Amino acid sequence: MARPGTGVALLPPPDGRLGVVAIGEVALENGAVVPDVRLAVQRWGELSPTLDNVVLVEHALTGDSHVITSADNAQPGWWEGMVGPGAPIDTDEWCVIATNVLGGCKGSTGPSTLAPDGKPWGARFPELTIRDQVTAEAQLLDVLGIERLASVVGGSMGGMRVLEWMIDKPERVSAALVLAVGARATADQIGTQTTQMAVITADPDWQGGDYHGTGRAPTTGMGLARRIAHLTYRTEGELDHRFTNRPQGDEDPWQGGRYAVQSYLEHQAEKLVQRFDPATYVLLSEAMNRHDIGRGRGGVAAALASTRVPCVVGGVDSDRLYPLHTQAELAEGLPGCAGLEIVHSRDGHDGFLTEAAAVAKLLTETMRLARENR
Amino acid sequence: MARPGTGVALLPPPDGRLGVVAIGEVALENGAVVPDVRLAVQRWGELSPTLDNVVLVEHALTGDSHVITSADNAQPGWWEGMVGPGAPIDTDEWCVIATNVLGGCKGSTGPSTLAPDGKPWGARFPELTIRDQVTAEAQLLDVLGIERLASVVGGSMGGMRVLEWMIDKPERVSAALVLAVGARATADQIGTQTTQMAVITADPDWQGGDYHGTGRAPTTGMGLARRIAHLTYRTEGELDHRFTNRPQGDEDPWQGGRYAVQSYLEHQAEKLVQRFDPATYVLLSEAMNRHDIGRGRGGVAAALASTRVPCVVGGVDSDRLYPLHTQAELAEGLPGCAGLEIVHSRDGHDGFLTEAAAVAKLLTETMRLARENR
Repeated sequence: MARPGTGVALLPPPDGRLGVVAIGEVALENGAVVPDVRLAVQRWGELSPTLDNVVLVEHALTGDSHVITSADNAQPGWWEGMVGPGAPIDTDEWCVIATNVLGGCKGSTGPSTLAPDGKPWGARFPELTIRDQVTAEAQLLDVLGIERLASVVGGSMGGMRVLEWMIDKPERVSAALVLAVGARATADQIGTQTTQMAVITADPDWQGGDYHGTGRAPTTGMGLARRIAHLTYRTEGELDHRFTNRPQGDEDPWQGGRYAVQSYLEHQAEKLVQRFDPATYVLLSEAMNRHDIGRGRGGVAAALASTRVPCVVGGVDSDRLYPLHTQAELAEGLPGCAGLEIVHSRDGHDGFLTEAAAVAKLLTETMRLARENR
Repeated sequence: MARPGTGVALLPPPDGRLGVVAIGEVALENGAVVPDVRLAVQRWGELSPTLDNVVLVEHALTGDSHVITSADNAQPGWWEGMVGPGAPIDTDEWCVIATNVLGGCKGSTGPSTLAPDGKPWGARFPELTIRDQVTAEAQLLDVLGIERLASVVGGSMGGMRVLEWMIDKPERVSAALVLAVGARATADQIGTQTTQMAVITADPDWQGGDYHGTGRAPTTGMGLARRIAHLTYRTEGELDHRFTNRPQGDEDPWQGGRYAVQSYLEHQAEKLVQRFDPATYVLLSEAMNRHDIGRGRGGVAAALASTRVPCVVGGVDSDRLYPLHTQAELAEGLPGCAGLEIVHSRDGHDGFLTEAAAVAKLLTETMRLARENR
């Protein structure tokens, strides 16, 4: 680690503008080394003189560092309203840092970026784990000279990283929020994720994963993968309430037209295709398949029992992808957890993004723990 | 209709051997006409002299007329044990008839069979509805000279046909069993079905649906569709109990190997690819999208209220594709239903196939109603 604070000048300005920080090579869990890694970083709020007010916000599979609007990007972020002056993570008190994960496609080194030979990494990019993503984040803090996080918070794949921070580096975390995730990938999650990966790699434009720069990308497969995934993110009841079996607008499914829910899923697919790289989607999905906090630690129960970080564990009662019992296991096994917080929602897994009031409450409680344990 | 009984000689023998019966042209709900339709038929048990003991067993999406083993096919059927001497549908008392649906690929006229011009129907085969399938079945009974069914029973897509029989032709049905289905396609079902259809038609070997006879078929897309579908047929808990996140055998997912659940899904996909035609899968999936007993009948409630057929309605408590509330709607709305029968299972939708004891009980009750109302 650099001497405390020596690297903080590398941080982008506190108005959320996107920056990039070079963190050197990253040694992966499987023995591979990724050279010259850069992580995209956004920051909101000023660092305290003692650097003890940093909150790391962890994004999910297709998320990125754009948590809220920033000086250079007026688009709402994926947790708009959760961060800012007076928000649950109050930037008058806390300095919020968000990165794009190692292997990502929103500014960090990953399959769609150029390798040292000047050609896209593509299929040469090594397989990753969630722990590798956290290794990279810890290296970023080392480069910045930040020893300890006031809190680390996130849901879904972001929650996986939170768990790894709590268990692998508990001395660097004062408090944590773990949302809508479990201790390891379930068979159901691996089943849908491997199917989505297969749909992408079956696209003729996949080209073995080396499609970058060819002018063709497996966007059809990517869109179909999103349609599969999106159904797991929502619920039967919410979808039927919104769409029933009715046609889209004045289209007629009996004459080649679409159903409303079909159009909705196609729209979700098109949006993701516009903004996300398929090889990154495959790489990060496999990282989620490998998520298992018990690996090499004597199992899940031992791993959970090994950390004392004060934390909040939350789950969405209608989540069909990361069901509530997987958060209950975390809440019961984590000594620093006071109990499972249930978010009531009909939105399913996406509730960790859509249930603003409930999530705000959990973030407020997490920051209270951070203040106590500062 | 033929004079009662005049056509029964067209029935295959009572030992389950596969036969084919020509039923003439079938006029479809959308105005199209399918000429020279043949339906595959299997039969177990003798017809009573008054032809009042016929039970029609309705198969689901990828099922067929092979309900149990037969003289020409020793493979177990999809409802093995439910039909036979002394079975819940006792062939010492009842004459069981099962067809392959119109549009199917197991002996009935459909996209993979030859049109009158001697070329495969392929993409020329008209879009179907569940009602069209029942129209074809009713024409079969007309050709055979069978006026009335002692009962009609089935689950999932088979249950859709049972509902249409009850509502469209109540005078021809003495009793019915409706299992694991709802009054209309839900948004969730349409969402997954349209996604599966898109995965198949995105396969380069789809060739606009006219791949038959080209030596190439969209088997990759078909297998992927099955993997998507199979996850909806099972439950999170059952899958995780069987597979957790462990690798398949001694394969290593970190070295290109597979997870156990991935291997399981691939196996399910391969099995279906071996025995099922992709264009048929697409055609029947769209028929399920269109399933809506309320169409043209003043809505679901009016349609349900319009039939007095004594019936049993059953659902599986863990079914995530056709959730229990969709069967509750049927049970509440059908005047002939004494109440919802809940099948306890951790198998999800597939419980209507796997929970032999519970399904046997429902079939026994249905046949009691058939006897009472004969």
